[in-house]
Amino acid sequence: MEVVIGTIAGILTSVSMIPQLIKVLKEKEVENLSWMMIAVLLTGVSLWVVYGIMREEWPIIISNAFSVMVNITLLIAYFLYKEK
Amino acid sequence: MEVVIGTIAGILTSVSMIPQLIKVLKEKEVENLSWMMIAVLLTGVSLWVVYGIMREEWPIIISNAFSVMVNITLLIAYFLYKEK
Repeated sequence: MEVVIGTIAGILTSVSMIPQLIKVLKEKEVENLSWMMIAVLLTGVSLWVVYGIMREEWPIIISNAFSVMVNITLLIAYFLYKEK
Repeated sequence: MEVVIGTIAGILTSVSMIPQLIKVLKEKEVENLSWMMIAVLLTGVSLWVVYGIMREEWPIIISNAFSVMVNITLLIAYFLYKEK
């Protein structure tokens, strides 16, 4: 039961930024988004990947590596659309 | 070393939504924010609290309970300012 709840929790926190990324890519507007939120989150999930590698815990590595990619894309999109 | 990196990673992912919350409370505009991102994240961190309680892991409980509060405030602010 713990494993099920932990897995669902992990999937949800990992995919949570996807709706935001889709919205940004669709509307090309980032006016009310905080780049610092994205930057702090990106640093955090990157360190989780390092932690996962150190402990060889694959669920931590995979879910956070996925978050790293989503947040890098979001940060690039942010600065791309912010310029306009 | 692992504990240090894990702790910093946990703190960063926990506090990452604070800059976004401050920005929303200051500017009272949520046009480009995805409510689904907040809702998915809130569900995820809530389940992490449940997981932490089940396993009696206090660092998981405390950091995610903190995220729950930040995200509830952000979601309330979202629907409050979305109305305008």
